[in-house]
Amino acid sequence: MSTDATVLIVGSVAFDTLHMPSGSFAKVLGGSATFASLAASFFCRPRLVGVVGKDYPKSAIDMLTSRGVDLAGLEVAEGDTFHWEGRYSDDLTGRTTLCTDLNVFATFHPKIPSQFRDTPFVLLGNIDPALQIEVLDQLDRPKLVVADTMNFWIRGTRAKLLELLRRIDVLVINEEEARELAGLRNIVQVARSLVSMGPQTIVIKQGEYGALLFERDEKSPGSLSIFSAPAYPVDEVIDPTGAGDTFVGAMLGFLAQRGRVDSAALRQGVIYGSTVASYCVEGIGVRRLCEITRAQIDDRFHTFHKLAHFEG
Amino acid sequence: MSTDATVLIVGSVAFDTLHMPSGSFAKVLGGSATFASLAASFFCRPRLVGVVGKDYPKSAIDMLTSRGVDLAGLEVAEGDTFHWEGRYSDDLTGRTTLCTDLNVFATFHPKIPSQFRDTPFVLLGNIDPALQIEVLDQLDRPKLVVADTMNFWIRGTRAKLLELLRRIDVLVINEEEARELAGLRNIVQVARSLVSMGPQTIVIKQGEYGALLFERDEKSPGSLSIFSAPAYPVDEVIDPTGAGDTFVGAMLGFLAQRGRVDSAALRQGVIYGSTVASYCVEGIGVRRLCEITRAQIDDRFHTFHKLAHFEG
Repeated sequence: MSTDATVLIVGSVAFDTLHMPSGSFAKVLGGSATFASLAASFFCRPRLVGVVGKDYPKSAIDMLTSRGVDLAGLEVAEGDTFHWEGRYSDDLTGRTTLCTDLNVFATFHPKIPSQFRDTPFVLLGNIDPALQIEVLDQLDRPKLVVADTMNFWIRGTRAKLLELLRRIDVLVINEEEARELAGLRNIVQVARSLVSMGPQTIVIKQGEYGALLFERDEKSPGSLSIFSAPAYPVDEVIDPTGAGDTFVGAMLGFLAQRGRVDSAALRQGVIYGSTVASYCVEGIGVRRLCEITRAQIDDRFHTFHKLAHFEG
Repeated sequence: MSTDATVLIVGSVAFDTLHMPSGSFAKVLGGSATFASLAASFFCRPRLVGVVGKDYPKSAIDMLTSRGVDLAGLEVAEGDTFHWEGRYSDDLTGRTTLCTDLNVFATFHPKIPSQFRDTPFVLLGNIDPALQIEVLDQLDRPKLVVADTMNFWIRGTRAKLLELLRRIDVLVINEEEARELAGLRNIVQVARSLVSMGPQTIVIKQGEYGALLFERDEKSPGSLSIFSAPAYPVDEVIDPTGAGDTFVGAMLGFLAQRGRVDSAALRQGVIYGSTVASYCVEGIGVRRLCEITRAQIDDRFHTFHKLAHFEG
């Protein structure tokens, strides 16, 4: 693999306690950087930047290392690892936070190891936009910067978020959060508004309905090229936690491996993201991501092709 | 056009009074059979079966006739035409019924003119399943029977609806109503359950998220072949009334014109349905359906192809 085939992933590393219709699961591995790094590891060598506490187990370090995740940027701080506890509704479409212990994450400031500063592909996971900007300030001209965000930051730190948007290439965001950020309902109008805030490319995640990719059309100013990616019809969803992080991790990992970021590669990246995310939800936490192979991913990628095909 | 290129459409013919964010519109033409017949008219010669009152204007009769709709099955009864009045929410995603005057529709029993009895393609619009069965009892072995239904019949006349399902080929149904009929949440499980009730093919309408087509896979018993159709990203939705009826009318009209009902044709039919429906929502009532041409429909059909394309 060339140096180009690396991605830098900044985000949370956490324990999740999950109360699911299928049972309760205490302190399973979670966090946006964990899901995204495992997803990216099928395509390239991810470099993780995050923080854990002294309680973070060696078995988890070993598991991530064995998947090729470079942990030189994983700080081990005094205290406990970030812990989230939540309960999902019976149909898994809603969830309630029971408890958020930020622990070592409360005072986290990402420090990018010097050997990571030239990483060409960068994922700014869903954390405080001020921290996402701190990361950018430590990097040497990355080729592609992708950021995720959520309603908490849209409401709480909008000015910082807008500052961030002017400095990234791709914004990946949930549909409802995209609407909130733009203050509009119609999804085409939402995308047009988000593109005007800075990013060239917007990926709107629609959960069980797939994703929409909007790209600024350089040939026709003011207009957008649109790709509609289907969702893989998963027979039985077990745990949706981390599906969005898995999506963006796989998408960026694929782009790094591909080494090109044109429209064709972006479309394939979105489908690879959906593919790996569709595996993620089939098990609790990161379990399925630890079981599957690249061959299984490629198989399901081709199923997506059949799923969306019609004679034009 | 051969006799094969005809569709029989049974449903409501109505006046709609619409209170939209863009204004109020009194007694515009509506009803499931109106939307479906106009949509089908781009592809073949629709035969409409329904009832109107003495107040139904000659201008509406002339408009439908000019579009090639055969009105030999349109009964004109003593009394007034079915009238529905409703108010849409500001974002057009919800609507409240203010008034339903069934009028002549209250005692309607579809009478199929003898020259219509051998129509090969049949659409049983969203009316009482008992009436849908009465229609089937008057027909000579149609090639393809498509039916639509809604929560009102799922809750109120379930036994009759189940009897109908055993006699049709394709069920077209909204996502939420499909879940209610099957008593399940996961959409793959829902489709499997609906197929077990009779129809070979299930089309699940997902509104702004497109549609899913499930076909019983004859080669692999118990399994389903799935097609995910994107929605056309409409820039500004004006009025969603009749979009579902337009979808199914265009789909069936296309199949009748195509003269074949294999998997490839069904997929194209779903995309043609989505295409014509995407025009429908761009204006109040049937206005856009009266303006567009087959060439515009074909143009947008090809845009759908670009929208869903990725390199496999």
